[in-house]
Amino acid sequence: MIREVAHLEIDPARTEDFLAGYRAAIPLFLAARGCRSVALERCVEQPGRFHLLVVWETLEDHTVHFRNSEDFQKWRGLVGAYFVAPPQVIHFKVEEPTTPN
Amino acid sequence: MIREVAHLEIDPARTEDFLAGYRAAIPLFLAARGCRSVALERCVEQPGRFHLLVVWETLEDHTVHFRNSEDFQKWRGLVGAYFVAPPQVIHFKVEEPTTPN
Repeated sequence: MIREVAHLEIDPARTEDFLAGYRAAIPLFLAARGCRSVALERCVEQPGRFHLLVVWETLEDHTVHFRNSEDFQKWRGLVGAYFVAPPQVIHFKVEEPTTPN
Repeated sequence: MIREVAHLEIDPARTEDFLAGYRAAIPLFLAARGCRSVALERCVEQPGRFHLLVVWETLEDHTVHFRNSEDFQKWRGLVGAYFVAPPQVIHFKVEEPTTPN
């Protein structure tokens, strides 16, 4: 499995609107081929910075199937107006976290 | 809870040594005050790039208690020789991922 990490820089004055757009977009991700989960987390050091964490079954589920879908356009329509910089997207191979016994 | 995200740039010729150092260091994290889990994931686009994901109960568990501990020095001793750039560390407020029903 693959973890998409998208670093998003949001206009600090418009984070509530952005968060509403994200909540509206959650079903678009969950309906996408290969999507296992989605989460949005806010940066402690910079309040306008977020990372979007999406787990996909394969890299192509994100980079080919989702990015070329109408739902991707809807996602960008819901949140794109609040970006103050282009999203920075990288992918990682998912590893299960180790926890204390 | 707080997610520490540390971006690590590793000498591509020495990633196996780095991974062995990480595995040896896992107990140091798990024994640390407030540490809930630790994971290391490898970047798809750049094989020498990793992110370390550590979940802490509080920000200070990482930035004060762990960073000032002997175990932090041991962690850096196990892996620091393989870094080709200073680690970039940021923190996020943990959110539970949303999954399909």
